[in-house]
Amino acid sequence: MNKKALTENVKRKGSFLCVGLDTDIKKIPTCLLGEEDPIFTFNKAIVDATADLCIAYKPNLAFYESMGVKGWIAFEKTVKYIKQFYPDQFIIADAKRGDIGNTSFMYARSFFEEMDIDAVTVAPYMGEDSVTPFLNYPEKWVILLALTSNKGSHDFQLMEDAQGEKLFEKVLQKSQQWATDEQMMYVVGATQGRAFEDIRKIVPNHFLLVPGVGAQGGSLQEVCKYGMNDECGLIVNSSRGIIYADKTIDFAQGAYRAAAELRDQMCEELKKNQIIP
Amino acid sequence: MNKKALTENVKRKGSFLCVGLDTDIKKIPTCLLGEEDPIFTFNKAIVDATADLCIAYKPNLAFYESMGVKGWIAFEKTVKYIKQFYPDQFIIADAKRGDIGNTSFMYARSFFEEMDIDAVTVAPYMGEDSVTPFLNYPEKWVILLALTSNKGSHDFQLMEDAQGEKLFEKVLQKSQQWATDEQMMYVVGATQGRAFEDIRKIVPNHFLLVPGVGAQGGSLQEVCKYGMNDECGLIVNSSRGIIYADKTIDFAQGAYRAAAELRDQMCEELKKNQIIP
Repeated sequence: MNKKALTENVKRKGSFLCVGLDTDIKKIPTCLLGEEDPIFTFNKAIVDATADLCIAYKPNLAFYESMGVKGWIAFEKTVKYIKQFYPDQFIIADAKRGDIGNTSFMYARSFFEEMDIDAVTVAPYMGEDSVTPFLNYPEKWVILLALTSNKGSHDFQLMEDAQGEKLFEKVLQKSQQWATDEQMMYVVGATQGRAFEDIRKIVPNHFLLVPGVGAQGGSLQEVCKYGMNDECGLIVNSSRGIIYADKTIDFAQGAYRAAAELRDQMCEELKKNQIIP
Repeated sequence: MNKKALTENVKRKGSFLCVGLDTDIKKIPTCLLGEEDPIFTFNKAIVDATADLCIAYKPNLAFYESMGVKGWIAFEKTVKYIKQFYPDQFIIADAKRGDIGNTSFMYARSFFEEMDIDAVTVAPYMGEDSVTPFLNYPEKWVILLALTSNKGSHDFQLMEDAQGEKLFEKVLQKSQQWATDEQMMYVVGATQGRAFEDIRKIVPNHFLLVPGVGAQGGSLQEVCKYGMNDECGLIVNSSRGIIYADKTIDFAQGAYRAAAELRDQMCEELKKNQIIP
């Protein structure tokens, strides 16, 4: 999916919500455990309930891998299901990969060729040749970790060089030499508040993928105030706050309600910033 | 496996070789493609041929994931096979994971509980809470990326703060607050030459996992000169140089010969440094 199509989806739906499919067998309603593939059954119900309200889904690979082969099957089925029934959804494999060139090439082949996923999150620590193998696919995206939502983001990402430039700023600067805003986005945690202002000075036009609203405590209003550009430029993710909003057999309706609440707030923000009428 | 047992294996075998199982369906001998599971068949033959010569195996997850469910099955079968027939081998899942706490927790559960693997490579960019979930398992290891073997390692890992401390040095320093040398190792690329001298000043006693000998051009002698400590403290990996040494039906003998050559050089180095008689 290209940037224009993604932006049009945001405007058409009045939403820049991404639903994070962090599906954990230990947290889904017990009534599903008798199903042949409980994880896929859960995901399917969540997707059916929320697809009108969001523009993207982000399965987190860790949750699938933790179940071995079964988890991998559930992951592939989920991706196929979304692609078949909701082809306007942007699918992000939250994998945080990043390895030497020939290995990153294998990951790119896996996600982009085999599964036709739209975007992969990538860790920048290993530098250019760990990222560029993901850039050989038109309309496919790298979403590079810049300033993450967790406490540990302070350990290294805020390290400053002698000129006062921070590591995450260096990542934003340098990676722009590798790809344009048609191929690259950045992860910036919702918990980072005013840092969005500084980030927008470096990457005014890029989409930012923003986790950390909800369970992690980030504020949607603050993210929009400092991070929204004139085309929106934000994909805001909520995982646990949506998919586990209701832990009973009515989990899908619970997810619908939680997603609708966020969508309504997003719609407000898009109107306030005159991105939609 | 604890540090003492690993060191004893090094001394007993006169080897600190790790064979990297970067198994690519496009590179294995075509005569295997008719097998039910060509990747596992290949791995099994490589392991049987090399187990006497090495102390560790390092399957690279990317190569398995790139084949989806089939790849994941081959990966699990390979790990089980090694554990069953060669229980003294140290198994490293080269995954380069690293995510927020609850996600890293899922990865840890997957590798350490479900699969009983000995060690996982982890990327440090997201800081402490992305690493510590891996540290709750006795005799299991985190191998943290410090200074990698690829060209892109120069992009961010060598960034210096105002006091001249580099990012990878900060990673080495800070992570010692999270775990001891009984739970943590570091990835340092064989291509980094004399940097090993500086690294040994910061982490004199830790095991270092050293990729980049062979296909990537690193020198074993240089690594030993600057990186070996009085208990060896090195696990040197070769992947392509061993497993694809011979591309015919005789691939297992080819792998044996390539591994034996490296083992002989390693044995020399261990003797030279009086680690073995």
